[in-house]
Amino acid sequence: MRRGFTLWMTGLPCSGKSTLASALAPRLRELGKNVEVLDGDVVRTHLSKGLGFSREDRDTNIRRIGFVCHLLSRNGVVAIGAAISPYREVRAELRAMIPDFVELYVKAPLEECIRRDVKGMYARALAGELKEFTGISDPYEEPAVPEIVVETGRMGVDESVEHVLAELARRERI
Amino acid sequence: MRRGFTLWMTGLPCSGKSTLASALAPRLRELGKNVEVLDGDVVRTHLSKGLGFSREDRDTNIRRIGFVCHLLSRNGVVAIGAAISPYREVRAELRAMIPDFVELYVKAPLEECIRRDVKGMYARALAGELKEFTGISDPYEEPAVPEIVVETGRMGVDESVEHVLAELARRERI
Repeated sequence: MRRGFTLWMTGLPCSGKSTLASALAPRLRELGKNVEVLDGDVVRTHLSKGLGFSREDRDTNIRRIGFVCHLLSRNGVVAIGAAISPYREVRAELRAMIPDFVELYVKAPLEECIRRDVKGMYARALAGELKEFTGISDPYEEPAVPEIVVETGRMGVDESVEHVLAELARRERI
Repeated sequence: MRRGFTLWMTGLPCSGKSTLASALAPRLRELGKNVEVLDGDVVRTHLSKGLGFSREDRDTNIRRIGFVCHLLSRNGVVAIGAAISPYREVRAELRAMIPDFVELYVKAPLEECIRRDVKGMYARALAGELKEFTGISDPYEEPAVPEIVVETGRMGVDESVEHVLAELARRERI
């Protein structure tokens, strides 16, 4: 069986996780990998309808995505999880559950994320309308020792993809 | 990529779904398949903690298991879903979502299931303690045209396994 792994992308809202996942997936498929992207926002509708953004509900959502990544990666799939996953503790839980876990910190300065503000959510959070918005009204706990860091404030998408591929190759994941 | 499919087992409580799934999985692995069993009761803790047994909650649970089976089977895995899944409508939804969907009706007479009563749940339901127990206080809608039927009241586990394998081979799934 081909070896699978879970590439877990964590980072602030608008740090570029979904963009990077979308650009990375076809490149990994070109290498002959089966790839599945589990985007936190998208997956919510399938796995976690009804859950909110309290710490408990966020953690439940992350655990479910992690469980699915686990099932996929132990069957040879490259499972890309892309979710803010702001709390270090639940990410450590995923690492303990998934033998082939690669943490990828999608890092961008908060000011840059606010500037991008893809869905206008930062604006609402800054206006005090969103009480549990990561980076503004809810904490983001940076990974202590992620396997890979991509600084999307400095690198474009193509460069970021190449960097991740190089790191995965260096770690003999691909 | 090897071809995956979803083998969806539906049937009354104690009809023998989990037993059959456990016996079938190693046989499929011997054939070189990647196999993942998603047992309704087991998966509940990972995907659906907090959901109850109302029709809506049951359907949500089934949809989540189906979603995961879908992800697995489109990546070459034989995903075995084993869940009462009593309502025809949501099973039809799964069939529409999953291109490689094989419905397996694990059929046993209600009296036989009551006799087995693995966890003493039928006794409680018959005593009026469980309000939403399939077969007693909640309906079970038989599949109209399942791809495979196994009558576990007449066949032992080994014979059931052989029957399923023969049917899968006949349908060129294995």
